[in-house]
Amino acid sequence: MDKSSYSQTIWIDPNDERLVHIIDQRWLPHKVIIEKISTVSDMANAISEMHVRGAPLLGVCGAFGMYLAAINCNEAVANQHSYFENAAKCLIETRPTAVNLTWGVKRVLAAIIDLVKSNDNLVEIQKHSKELALKILANDIEMCRQIGLHGLKIIKEIQERKSGAPVNILTHCNAGWLACVKYGTATSPIYQAWEAGIKLHVFADETRPRNQGASLTAWELGQAGIPHTVIADNTGGHLMQRSEIDLVIVGSDRTTRTGDVANKIGTYLKALAAYDNNVPFYVALPSSTIDWDLNDGADIPIETRDPDEVRYISGLVDGEIKSVLLTPKNTTALNYGFDVTPARLVTGLITERGICSATEESILKLFPERIS
Amino acid sequence: MDKSSYSQTIWIDPNDERLVHIIDQRWLPHKVIIEKISTVSDMANAISEMHVRGAPLLGVCGAFGMYLAAINCNEAVANQHSYFENAAKCLIETRPTAVNLTWGVKRVLAAIIDLVKSNDNLVEIQKHSKELALKILANDIEMCRQIGLHGLKIIKEIQERKSGAPVNILTHCNAGWLACVKYGTATSPIYQAWEAGIKLHVFADETRPRNQGASLTAWELGQAGIPHTVIADNTGGHLMQRSEIDLVIVGSDRTTRTGDVANKIGTYLKALAAYDNNVPFYVALPSSTIDWDLNDGADIPIETRDPDEVRYISGLVDGEIKSVLLTPKNTTALNYGFDVTPARLVTGLITERGICSATEESILKLFPERIS
Repeated sequence: MDKSSYSQTIWIDPNDERLVHIIDQRWLPHKVIIEKISTVSDMANAISEMHVRGAPLLGVCGAFGMYLAAINCNEAVANQHSYFENAAKCLIETRPTAVNLTWGVKRVLAAIIDLVKSNDNLVEIQKHSKELALKILANDIEMCRQIGLHGLKIIKEIQERKSGAPVNILTHCNAGWLACVKYGTATSPIYQAWEAGIKLHVFADETRPRNQGASLTAWELGQAGIPHTVIADNTGGHLMQRSEIDLVIVGSDRTTRTGDVANKIGTYLKALAAYDNNVPFYVALPSSTIDWDLNDGADIPIETRDPDEVRYISGLVDGEIKSVLLTPKNTTALNYGFDVTPARLVTGLITERGICSATEESILKLFPERIS
Repeated sequence: MDKSSYSQTIWIDPNDERLVHIIDQRWLPHKVIIEKISTVSDMANAISEMHVRGAPLLGVCGAFGMYLAAINCNEAVANQHSYFENAAKCLIETRPTAVNLTWGVKRVLAAIIDLVKSNDNLVEIQKHSKELALKILANDIEMCRQIGLHGLKIIKEIQERKSGAPVNILTHCNAGWLACVKYGTATSPIYQAWEAGIKLHVFADETRPRNQGASLTAWELGQAGIPHTVIADNTGGHLMQRSEIDLVIVGSDRTTRTGDVANKIGTYLKALAAYDNNVPFYVALPSSTIDWDLNDGADIPIETRDPDEVRYISGLVDGEIKSVLLTPKNTTALNYGFDVTPARLVTGLITERGICSATEESILKLFPERIS
C-alpha cells in the first residue's frame, strides 16, 4: 500500500509477509510516516509510544504482535509455551488498561497454545496465527462497514430532502479509521455516503485539548478527498443556529444500556446545540462499547488527564513539531477527557446491527441476547 | 505604577505628565511590557498594531492621543485647527470601524477646538485636554465599578447559600480590565467580590481560536491573586453537570433591546449548558453596548475572521513567541468571531444602573429614556 493516499492503519507487506506496516500517527497531520514492524518488541514499542492509538486498532495490533512472535519463532522454541506467553506479556504490559489490546493478544495466544499442545509444527503455528490476525482485522473492518451502511440511510434521507445540495455533517474528535483499521465509526457513514456519490461537506471540530479533529479527522477526510472545514469547538452552536449543519455524528467511548453516551469532552455541548436547533444527533458505535451493566451515564468514570495538554499545544513550526505554552507559566489547568451526553439529547445510535433510539427498550430490540 | 502586579491598562507617568503608559498586550501572558507613549504617532502605532485592544480602552486611548497632541504642541501651532484635526485624523484612521476610538478622539478634539476658537493659550489647551482625558478614563473606571457592585450582590447571595465554600464562576473570553481601563465588565463583579473577602474560584474558558481566556483572563486573575483554572472550551458543560459551577458571567459585544446577546463565539454553548443544569447565566455590559434599534439577535451581523486564527496558534517556545500550524497544511478553516445567545437562556443583564431580566420590559425599566 505504498501510495499517496491512505485509508487503513495496519497491513501486511504484500511482498514480504514478515513485515507489518503501520502509520506512525505521532507525526500526523504534518508527516506521514509508515513504520515497518518486524518483531514483537517493535510492536510493543509502537503501542507504548503511541505510534498507534484507538481501542479497536490496539486489539488488531495485539493480534499482529502475536503473529510476529510466530513468524520470528524457530523450531527450537516452537513447542515452548513460555516463548509465546512471554511475547503476550510483553505486548499486554505496554498498555495494561487497554481492554481490546489484551483481548487481541490473548485470542491469538490461545490459538497458538492449542497448536503447541497438539505438537503441531512451526509452519502450522505461523499459518494459523496469520489467518487469525487477518480475521480479527477483517472483522473490525466489517463491523465499521456495517455501521457505515446503516448510517448511510440517514445521510441519504437528508440528501433527498435537500434536493442534491451537499449534506453538512458535524463531527467531534476522531472516531475515524485512524482509531480502527478502516472506515472508523462516526466517519464510516460519511465514507459510505461519499462512495455512494452523495455530495457532502464535513465540519470537523478542532477538539481541544488534543486536537484530534484539527489534525487526525481533517487529515483522514483529506486523504479521501471529502470536502471539509476545521472549526474551533466554540463554533458548532452558531453554525446550527444558522442552519448550516444537517446532521451531527460522533463516536462513543462507552454507552450505557439506557443510551447515555460518554464521548470526548465537549460532545455534550454539541448535543445541547443540536437539540436546541432540531439537528439530528447520532452516535455511531460498535456494540462492544455498550456497558450492559450500567443504567446511568452519571456512573461512567470520567478520566482527568495531564493539565499540560491544556497549557501547551503542539504544532508545526520551522519544519519541526514543537510544543508551545499557551497560558501564563504557573497557571493551573483542569483536563477532563470525556463527558456524558444524556440519552434524551441523542436522536439515535448507529450500531453494526442497525439504528436504534437511545433507550433501553430500543437497544435491546437490536441486542435481545442482552435482555436480563 | 512600576510594580509587580497590574490592574490598569493606561495611566499618566506620575513623575512626567508628558508620558502615557500602556501595557503592550501583544506579549501577554508571557511578557509584561510597559510602553511609554509620548507622541500622537506612538499612540496611533500602539492602536493600529494592537498593543491595546477592547472597545472601551480604545476610546480612552483616543482621548489620551489627543492629550499628547496638546502636550507636544508649541505656541506656533496652538491656534491652528489643522494641527489638532490632523492629529485626530491620524488616530482615527488606525482603526476606522472602532466606534469608541472615534468617540474618544472627537470628544477631546471638540473641547480643544473650542479653546482654539476662543484664542485661549497653550497651557489652557493642555490643561483642559488632560482633564478631559482623565475624566473619560475615570468615567470608564466608574462604569465598570458600578457593574461590579451590582454583580457583587449575585455572588454574595450564592456565597450565603454555600455557607462560605468558594463560589465557582465560569467566564468565557476576556471581558476584563485589559479591554477597559480597570475592573472590566464580566470580571468586575469577580474583583469586587474578591475585595469584599468572598472566597472565589474562577474557571477561565480557553476561548479558541484567539485564546483570550487562557492568556489574558488567566493573567489578569493571576495579577489579582484570585484562584483560577484554565479549561478547554469543551469542558464547561461537563463541569456544570457535576455541579462544579455556581455562576456564569460573560461580557457582550452587542445586546438587542430585547436581551439577545452577541458575545465571543462559544458563549451560546455555555448558555445552553447553564440552562440545562440550572446554573445562573449573567451577562455584564455597559449600556453603551445595547443596540436600541435591534429587536432580534438574528439581525446582529457576525464577523468572520482570518481562518489562519484557527489553523495556527501562537505560544511560548524556547523563550520566543511562535506560531505553530495545527491542521494539515491545506486544510480549510472557518472562523466566526461571535455568536448570539437568545434572551431565553440569559438569567439577567448586569448594567451600570443595576440588574435586569433579558426582556425589553425589564431593560426599559432601567433605561426609561429609551422607551420609544
